[in-house]
Amino acid sequence: MSETAGVETLRWVGDAAAGWLRLIDQTRLPTELVEVDCLDVERVWCAIKALQVRGAPAIGVAAGYGAVIGARAAGLSDPGTVRHALEAAADRLATSRPTAVNLFWALDRMRAAARRQAATGLELLENLLAEARLIDAEDRAMCRAIGQHGSALLRPGDGVLTHCNAGGLATADYGTALAVIFSAHAQGKPLRVYADETRPLLQGARLTAWELAKRRIPVTLICDNMAAQVMREGRINLVVVGADRIAANGDVANKIGTYGVALLARAHQIPFYVAAPSSTFDLALAEGAGIPIEQRDPREITHGFGRQTAPEGVDVYNPAFDVTPAELIAGIITENGIISPVTHAAIAASLRPALERVADPSFDC
Amino acid sequence: MSETAGVETLRWVGDAAAGWLRLIDQTRLPTELVEVDCLDVERVWCAIKALQVRGAPAIGVAAGYGAVIGARAAGLSDPGTVRHALEAAADRLATSRPTAVNLFWALDRMRAAARRQAATGLELLENLLAEARLIDAEDRAMCRAIGQHGSALLRPGDGVLTHCNAGGLATADYGTALAVIFSAHAQGKPLRVYADETRPLLQGARLTAWELAKRRIPVTLICDNMAAQVMREGRINLVVVGADRIAANGDVANKIGTYGVALLARAHQIPFYVAAPSSTFDLALAEGAGIPIEQRDPREITHGFGRQTAPEGVDVYNPAFDVTPAELIAGIITENGIISPVTHAAIAASLRPALERVADPSFDC
Repeated sequence: MSETAGVETLRWVGDAAAGWLRLIDQTRLPTELVEVDCLDVERVWCAIKALQVRGAPAIGVAAGYGAVIGARAAGLSDPGTVRHALEAAADRLATSRPTAVNLFWALDRMRAAARRQAATGLELLENLLAEARLIDAEDRAMCRAIGQHGSALLRPGDGVLTHCNAGGLATADYGTALAVIFSAHAQGKPLRVYADETRPLLQGARLTAWELAKRRIPVTLICDNMAAQVMREGRINLVVVGADRIAANGDVANKIGTYGVALLARAHQIPFYVAAPSSTFDLALAEGAGIPIEQRDPREITHGFGRQTAPEGVDVYNPAFDVTPAELIAGIITENGIISPVTHAAIAASLRPALERVADPSFDC
Repeated sequence: MSETAGVETLRWVGDAAAGWLRLIDQTRLPTELVEVDCLDVERVWCAIKALQVRGAPAIGVAAGYGAVIGARAAGLSDPGTVRHALEAAADRLATSRPTAVNLFWALDRMRAAARRQAATGLELLENLLAEARLIDAEDRAMCRAIGQHGSALLRPGDGVLTHCNAGGLATADYGTALAVIFSAHAQGKPLRVYADETRPLLQGARLTAWELAKRRIPVTLICDNMAAQVMREGRINLVVVGADRIAANGDVANKIGTYGVALLARAHQIPFYVAAPSSTFDLALAEGAGIPIEQRDPREITHGFGRQTAPEGVDVYNPAFDVTPAELIAGIITENGIISPVTHAAIAASLRPALERVADPSFDC
C-alpha cells in the first residue's frame, strides 16, 4: 500500500509491451479521488501540463513511464524503431513544463538507457521499462532517506510551515518536505503543520492538507498572506518546502511564494529548509537567475474555481515559480544528508557520492 | 456623479422621516453591479457583517446612516424616544465588526449628536441625519486631501503595490490608498499598479482591479504570494495600503497580509505607506497589540469560490486583519499631510488641528 493515501500517486500497470501509466488526477482532490490511465504520450503530456500529476520528482517518474509508452508507438520490430520513437517521445514530453529539472533528468536517463545494447525491439522496451521502474524506485528510496535525515531537525511540539505540496503526491511516494514531517511524526514527535493554501491552484489546501489529514497529523490551513502573522505569533519553529530545480550555488526554484516565505522566515529568525532529492540539482546552472520560470494561464487567477473573480480582461502576472537565494536557506535536505550552510562547495561534496552510486549498477535502491 | 464607478458606494435616499441607506453590494462585484436598500438596522448590520459594505471609512459612514434608521424605529413622538432608539441601534451596530475603529467613532458622533437640544422627535431625527451626512461629507473631503498629499510621493512611471481595497468602495468616495494613485494619475503621472488579489475574499481582484480599470489606470493582478517576486524584479517603487485602526504609536491594523507585505517591502528597500483619515486613529490604544482582531468563518477559506477546495473538517486559521508595527511604515498619509517618521509625537501633533477643526461647527467640509 502506498504511503500517500491508500493509493499510489502514479504507477505502471501491466507489462512493457501493452502496459500503461495510471495516476491520481490531482486536480480533482480533495473532493474526488480519481485515477486516470495514460495510454499514449499526448495523454501523459497533458497530465503533466494540466497538473494532474505535479511535483518535480513525480513529474520525473511520470516522464520515465511516458517515454516507455512513446517508445513502442511505431511498433517493436527492431531496436532502431524503438530508439527513434523514444527520442520523439522524450522531445515531446520535455515541452510539457519548463522549470522542474527532474523532468529533463529522467528523460536523459531514458535516452541513455535506449542506447544500451538490445537484441530486439521488445528487449529494448523491456530495458526502458526497467529504467523507468528504477527511477520510480530510487525516488521512493530517496524520499525515505530525506525524511530520515530531515526529521532530526524537528523537536516534539514544533510548529512547521510548508508551502505548496511536496508530499507523497509530489513524488512516487512519501514526499520530500512532507517526508520530513511524516518521518518525525512516525518517531512519535507531536507536531502542528501550517499549510499555506498556495494560490492560484491551492495545492496546499487541496493536497497537503489532505495528505496530512489522512495521516492524522494536525494541520491548520492558512491563506498565503497569513504566513507572516502565524510566524509573528510564535507558532512556527521551522519552515520546510520542496524544490523544482536547485542551481549549483544553492539557489532554489520552487512554487511561487516560496521566496516570500523565506524572507518572512528570516525576518522572524525561523530556519528555512528545502527538501529535495539529488535529481533536483542542476549543476549546469551556476545560479538561480538561469532557471527558466514557467508563466501560466491568467485564468488560473481570474477564474480559478469555476467562477470569475476579477474584472474581464484585467492584466495578470502568473509566474508558477520563484527563486529563493541560497543565503536565505538554512539547509537543503537530500537523501545524502543535510547540506548546511548552503554553498557551492558543500553542494558539490554532497552530490558526488550520490552520483557515483546512481552510476553504479550494483547500487541497491 | 461619484468617482468610484458612476455609482456611489453608499448614500442616503429620501428625507429623515422615511429615507433609507442605499449601498453597492460589494460581494457581487466585479461581475454584477447591484445596489441594495437598507430599511432597518438589522439590514445595515448584515450589510456590514457580510462585507456588502466594507472598508473602515465606508463602515463608519454606513453606521452613521444606520443609526438614523434605527433612531426612528420606535416612532418620532418625542426626543426621548428617538434618543432611546438611537442608543439601541448604535449598540447593535457596534457588534457588527470589531476591528475598524471608524465604526465606533461614527457611532460616538451619532450619540453625541443625539444629546443636542431638539424640540420634537422629528427635529432630533433631522439633526441626526445632518450629522450622518456630515460624517459622509467629511469622509469625501478627507479622501481628496489624502490623495492630494500622497500624490507627491509618486513619480511618473512608478510601480505601486497595494493590498486589499482602500479605494472609493472602501470610503464614501475616492478612497484612501487608491486616492493617492487616483490623484497622481489625475496629475498626468503614468503609473502601473500591482493589486494583491487578497485572499480569502479577493477584495483586490474584485474591487481594486475593478476601480482601477474603470479609471483606465494600468493594473496588474497578482496572487498575494507573488508580491515578493514583483518587488524583486524591480517593478515596485512604493507600497500604499489603507488602515482599519491605527494606535497612538503608529502601529496599523489592516487587512490580513499587510504585515507580510510591509516586511517584504523592507527586505527590498521599498517605502511602505499607509493612507487613512484621522478617524482611523485610536489614540486610546498605546500600541497595536491592543487592537482586537476579528476572526472570520473558516468557510471563507475552504469554500471560497462556491466550491470546496480543502478537505472536509480541516482546521483553519482566518484572522481578518494583522498589525504592522510602526517601524516598518515610512509614513502615514492623512488629510493633514504625511506623518513621517511615524512616531507617537508626530501622530499627536498631526491629529491635533484636525480634531480641533472637526469640533468647530464652522469647519467647512
